[in-house]
Amino acid sequence: MRAVDIILKKREKGELTKEEINFFVQGFVRDQIPDYQVSAWAMAVVLNGMTPRETTDLTLAMVQSGRVLDLSGVVDIAVDKHSSGGVGDKTSLVVLPVVAAAGLPVGKMSGRGLGFSGGTLDKMESIPGYRVDLNTEEFKRQLKEKGIVLTGQSVDLAPADGKLYALRDVTGTVQSIPLIASSIMSKKIAGGAQAIVLDIKVGRGAFMETLEMARDLAGLMEKIGDLAGRKTVCLLSDMNQPLGHAVGNAVEVAEAIETLHGGGPADFLEHCLHVSAHMLHIGHRARDLAEARHLAEEAIADGAAFRKFRVLVEAQGGDVTYVDQPGKLPRAKLIEPVPATRGGWLAGVDARVIGEASVALGAGRASKADVVDHAVGLVIHHKVGDRVEQGDTLFDIHANDSRKQSEARQRVLEAHVIVDQQVPPLPLFYE
Amino acid sequence: MRAVDIILKKREKGELTKEEINFFVQGFVRDQIPDYQVSAWAMAVVLNGMTPRETTDLTLAMVQSGRVLDLSGVVDIAVDKHSSGGVGDKTSLVVLPVVAAAGLPVGKMSGRGLGFSGGTLDKMESIPGYRVDLNTEEFKRQLKEKGIVLTGQSVDLAPADGKLYALRDVTGTVQSIPLIASSIMSKKIAGGAQAIVLDIKVGRGAFMETLEMARDLAGLMEKIGDLAGRKTVCLLSDMNQPLGHAVGNAVEVAEAIETLHGGGPADFLEHCLHVSAHMLHIGHRARDLAEARHLAEEAIADGAAFRKFRVLVEAQGGDVTYVDQPGKLPRAKLIEPVPATRGGWLAGVDARVIGEASVALGAGRASKADVVDHAVGLVIHHKVGDRVEQGDTLFDIHANDSRKQSEARQRVLEAHVIVDQQVPPLPLFYE
Repeated sequence: MRAVDIILKKREKGELTKEEINFFVQGFVRDQIPDYQVSAWAMAVVLNGMTPRETTDLTLAMVQSGRVLDLSGVVDIAVDKHSSGGVGDKTSLVVLPVVAAAGLPVGKMSGRGLGFSGGTLDKMESIPGYRVDLNTEEFKRQLKEKGIVLTGQSVDLAPADGKLYALRDVTGTVQSIPLIASSIMSKKIAGGAQAIVLDIKVGRGAFMETLEMARDLAGLMEKIGDLAGRKTVCLLSDMNQPLGHAVGNAVEVAEAIETLHGGGPADFLEHCLHVSAHMLHIGHRARDLAEARHLAEEAIADGAAFRKFRVLVEAQGGDVTYVDQPGKLPRAKLIEPVPATRGGWLAGVDARVIGEASVALGAGRASKADVVDHAVGLVIHHKVGDRVEQGDTLFDIHANDSRKQSEARQRVLEAHVIVDQQVPPLPLFYE
Repeated sequence: MRAVDIILKKREKGELTKEEINFFVQGFVRDQIPDYQVSAWAMAVVLNGMTPRETTDLTLAMVQSGRVLDLSGVVDIAVDKHSSGGVGDKTSLVVLPVVAAAGLPVGKMSGRGLGFSGGTLDKMESIPGYRVDLNTEEFKRQLKEKGIVLTGQSVDLAPADGKLYALRDVTGTVQSIPLIASSIMSKKIAGGAQAIVLDIKVGRGAFMETLEMARDLAGLMEKIGDLAGRKTVCLLSDMNQPLGHAVGNAVEVAEAIETLHGGGPADFLEHCLHVSAHMLHIGHRARDLAEARHLAEEAIADGAAFRKFRVLVEAQGGDVTYVDQPGKLPRAKLIEPVPATRGGWLAGVDARVIGEASVALGAGRASKADVVDHAVGLVIHHKVGDRVEQGDTLFDIHANDSRKQSEARQRVLEAHVIVDQQVPPLPLFYE
């Protein structure tokens, strides 16, 4: 078997066999197939596609490229969730404690911010001392003893995916439904997941900008789940405007804590309850979604979810006084409320521009070497469909640099579209 | 400007600007843009194409990546020819001396065998002592003094093309009309050509298997010629069956010498006269093609073309006694005439199979490190449309290994298709 023949076959729109895919992935991980052949192949996949069967074989080949976490004996059923990435998406910080408090132990490996999209690990590191580098033994022990883990991805899980992603990032081959689906699913399967809730974001502030692309990705991931023997549920949720109000790191942690106390933005709370219900349902903690949702609501109402979050932070070395008194969280030097320059109905709050403005303030990384500033970010007060009056505060800027503050003011103002006609609100979920 | 944005633009079927193409080619040659980005870009070009303007800019960027040979002061007009590669294609060995003898000085840089297709340099090296590594000064001096040069390509001409070709060869990105056209044209323009006759082979034994692909390539190269200010004439010639009879190295040299003496296969002689006439015409040695053809015929008839070939060999250090007595040329140990197993009309003589059989005998290289055996090859006696009787010699095998001889017998017999109905001959040229 020769790598060039596999590239040629894909160039000619052929369907690769399981053996060809295994040969290619193994050769790449072992440095027997050079980057320049893999990138040419990746571009052929971007332009010519892959069938669900090929995508599943690619997923499993990437899973087999490293260790596979075995959680049997640790939990009855290993349930995981994944978000395709968005702006203001602090969902894991609420959903994990809710689900764990409702009796379904959950251990999750998360990622860092990518482009305009925030990262769960960056957010959690707003809490001093919080460790995101648990090893496998620590992961298993904490999951068994505390019922909740939220840490970084261990490097020996699906190393082929990490290596391929790094190459795709610099060769214009990120945007491919089969490559995105296999990347997500390989990490989840290698992490031991038996049942997975996939929250696919759709819109301006998501990697899937159209509902059609998001549906394709959802359909493909459900097929991979079927073929790989993993129960998979896909939700399609709106990401044209930010989720909740806070966009950044410490500001998002504070909003998550507020939500765990039963407060927080209505859209964000609803989103978290919906995702939590699906997890409790596929994790066999409830007979149906209605019962699952009730369990989730109870976990917040009786304080169990907040206490679980506290347990999580303490277990991973974080200073729980920051959880008890969110006012202690890193705070920017310059906090500016920005008023609406006119009245009307809010027709758009461009999530991508807001995500990019938050990154520009320092809350994310323009390049891998950048250091995240946990204090900075934005708080967006209104949702599409809201009526606003001239002078109402549209958003707050949390900045540590006045030049960046000015730039953010301009960009985020432009991201708000105010019109004279009434506008319906955006849905939280699609279908 | 970033390489990844140029890749993304081509992935999305965008038209690259001259500046983007220059940036990409210069970055590649200077090792600032890594192979894995260039191969991803090349695959995007293979699948999404390039416009004539983009292809011309790529051609000129590759020309500018190295030295450009300046032949003003050496010849009145620098005329070159190029064949897209075929089986039994020893055309340059006859056309160059014919044209030079007719008064148009011609210096050509040729290549080596590639896959099933033979290489002019390998053929000429059948003559002991013949040098194919002239430097630029030697090239110019010999062209001025002798009016004829036939040597290898100097490495400092269009280095970007050489580097890109090597990468395309291992990344499944060879088959692309714009990349093939820019590769050919960049070498010709860097070699100083002002007027170029392009002989594009079509059929089973050519890289362009269909007339449509060949027409596309021809049209694109003529457009590049126009845009780059080089007079370009494209001929489309048949390569479904071998050209002439001999396929190999020494056997092809012997056939070329026979042709220069006024003998040789009728199809090959006709092909050479046609190409020669076009060169003499675009080189302003004749007012029209009829006069040019007359000059070419005369050059053979009065022995001037043969004497010019002798001058060429002597000037480049070759032993001319091999030209005077072709029986001295390397001769295989085993020469076997193979008879037809049935009578009928020849409906096909598969040039690709014959080219591959010749390579397998040792006349070409399966990989770059292989050493060419100049003595071996095949002599194919009949053409499509010929009537053959059972027992007539179909072809001779020239082998140095009896196992390879047997394999060649089987393959070349199968390459001959004999049928009961009369079959028309194949054309030499299309349109």
